[in-house]
Parts: sequence; C-alpha cells; structure tokens
Amino acid sequence: MREVFQQELREVQERLVEISSLVADSIENATTAFGESNVALAESVIEQDSRIDAAAVALDELAIQILARQQPVARDLRIVVTALRVSASLERMGDMATHIAQLARYRFPEKVVPKGLRKTFQEMGALDCEIAHKLTELLRTEDVKLAEEIRDEDDKIDALHLSVFDKVLGETWKGGAEDTVDATLASRYHERFADHAVSIAKKMQYLATGDWAPQDD
Amino acid sequence: MREVFQQELREVQERLVEISSLVADSIENATTAFGESNVALAESVIEQDSRIDAAAVALDELAIQILARQQPVARDLRIVVTALRVSASLERMGDMATHIAQLARYRFPEKVVPKGLRKTFQEMGALDCEIAHKLTELLRTEDVKLAEEIRDEDDKIDALHLSVFDKVLGETWKGGAEDTVDATLASRYHERFADHAVSIAKKMQYLATGDWAPQDD
Repeated sequence: MREVFQQELREVQERLVEISSLVADSIENATTAFGESNVALAESVIEQDSRIDAAAVALDELAIQILARQQPVARDLRIVVTALRVSASLERMGDMATHIAQLARYRFPEKVVPKGLRKTFQEMGALDCEIAHKLTELLRTEDVKLAEEIRDEDDKIDALHLSVFDKVLGETWKGGAEDTVDATLASRYHERFADHAVSIAKKMQYLATGDWAPQDD
Repeated sequence: MREVFQQELREVQERLVEISSLVADSIENATTAFGESNVALAESVIEQDSRIDAAAVALDELAIQILARQQPVARDLRIVVTALRVSASLERMGDMATHIAQLARYRFPEKVVPKGLRKTFQEMGALDCEIAHKLTELLRTEDVKLAEEIRDEDDKIDALHLSVFDKVLGETWKGGAEDTVDATLASRYHERFADHAVSIAKKMQYLATGDWAPQDD
C-alpha cells in the first residue's frame, strides 16, 4: 500500500511539473506576443489555456482519488492537499499569461506596449519567464534554493510594477488613455503571475522543511 | 463516527458562513469608503483583512484535520475538499475588498472615483455587496436558487466592467492618467470579487445536485 502511494505521489509530482512547463511555454509566448504584437502567437497562448485548465482538473481528480483510496495522514496528507493548491495556482498563472496574450490581440495591429515602457515590460516579461522555468525545476527537483530565487525575482517584479505607475502618473507621460489602461492591466498581470509562483514556492518550502506553515497568501 | 463527522462538517459550514459575512462587511465598507473617500473606513477594511486571512487558515487546518481523522470518501470527501477551495476564494474576495479600500486611501484627500464613473461604480459596488450577502446565505442555507442569482448579478457586473473601458477609451473621457489608472484597477477589483463568488456558487451547486463537475474557473 505504501509503495502504491509513493508511486501515486510521483505521478502527482510529474503532472505538476508537466502543467508548470505548459505554463512556462505560455508565458514565454505571451510575453513575446506582447512585445512583438504577434497575434498568431497570442492566439496560440489563448488556445493553450484550455489544455492547462484540463490538466489541472485531471490532476485534482487524481489527488481526490488518492485521498479516497490511500487515506493518507500527517505529512502525506499535506502533500496531497498542497498538490491541489499548487494546481489551482498554476491554473491562475496560465490565466495571467492568457490575459497578457489577449491584450496583444485586442490592440493588434497597433503595438500594445506603450512607448517609454518597452524596456520595463521586457524586463518584467523576462523575469516572469525565468520564474516559470525555476518553478518547473523546483517542482521537479524539490530544490528549495530555487524557492528563494523565485522570491528574489518577485521582489524585482514588484519594483518594476511600481515603476510603471510612477511612469504613467509622472509629468513626462505622453500616453493616451488606451496606453494607460494597457500599461496598468499588463503590469498587474505580470505581477500577479509572479505572486502565484511565490505562493507555490512557499508551499514547496514548507513541505521540504517539514515546517508546515498553513498561511496562505 | 458518522455523527462526529456530521458535526465536524457543520462546524466547517458555520465557519465558512462566518468568513463569508466578514467578507460581506469588508465589501460593504470598502465600496462605501471608495464612494465617499472615507479613509477611516478604508483603514478598517485593511485591518479586517488579517482577520479574514486568519479565519481562512484556521478553517483549512480544521478541514485537513477532518481528512486525517475521519478519512471521508465519495461525496463526504468532496465536501471537505470543496470547503478548502471555498475558503481560498473567500480569502481572495477579502483581498479584492482590501484593494478597493487601498485605492480610496491612496488618493485621499482627493476623490478616488473618476468623474463620469460615479454611477457606474455605485452600481458595481452595490452588486458586489448583494452578491456577498447572497453568498453568505447560499453557504448557510445551501439554497442553490441563490447560486443562479449570483451568476445573473455577475453578468451585470461584467457588463458594467466593459462599460468602464468604453467610457475611459471614449472620446468624451476628460480624465487624466491617474483617473484612468484608478478606473481600470477599481473596475478589475470589483469584477474579480464577483468572479470568485461565482466560482464558489458553482461549487455549491455541484455539491447540492450531486452532479460533481470538477472544472475550476
């Protein structure tokens, strides 16, 4: 029974890694589509989202079946419950990538990135991609050093997010209302993407250290 | 054992109702603070958020203990897993109310609601409050008619959310960048608040009808 359980846990872990790499693809493509106003790439992200959703639903069903069949307790139980939460956060990360792609598609053939913010969004996009890849590695290897790195990168994204508002509300801002709306929403989506990754990273840290802190964020 | 389990489930339900009423208080106060630029009321919402977070964490711990002790299967297991998800959504609803309150506080003593959008935000705020109260009733009574009503009200909020963008991007918009940022963020927070309520309402419907659909949203 114990061995079957361990095997099922490995299956859960593999599926989380799989969903996380789908999310990493999505954010790579979404930020590229956003930066280059590439509408075909944006469409592919939007289509990919239903794959991510379906994979998350399937994983949740597997986790619930494991709870029913294996009746885990203590740390084993927390692993399965954590998997359910990680799956929900990954699904939201996919949504954020999709929202970024949708912005690129809505504005096409206009450029969606407001002038004066190109470099900022390039940096935010690159950080989101790095975070997504590190998250996939974290889920695969359980190397908690990666969790720290994700938190550091999230701090950089938070600073860039604030700098977007400084720019948009500053005296040199020449953008129209459309630019302001796009900058506001795009920045929020980039920032939320990273927040969800941090939330997952914290949960993985708790599991790895055994120092279970139930705080959600 | 079965009786203990039923009693524990009632405890879970009571706590969900309690958290949902805290969230209803928060959105009432947040939308009032937002409409009236009432900074003291905004502060109270921001403080209340840690109570909501703590109550959600405590409920999650209770749910995990029930899973460990009672080892529920089938529908009973789904009820407990659903409680974990509902708690996460309620916690996010509290965050959205807090974000609305924070907008009011940031802009104080300026008015945060951009001119020309006062009526729209009054309507969105009133709908969010109605939804929060109906959600509390739904969690208390399990009357799924309320789930339908929440979905209908969410449709109205979605329409108002789109109308904010029509206004802000329209030719008659006289607002500066600050007004545009505030309108964009405030509208998004009002809309997301209702989305989370719909997500909870759907989960309650699935449980009530036995027609378990694992789709997350």
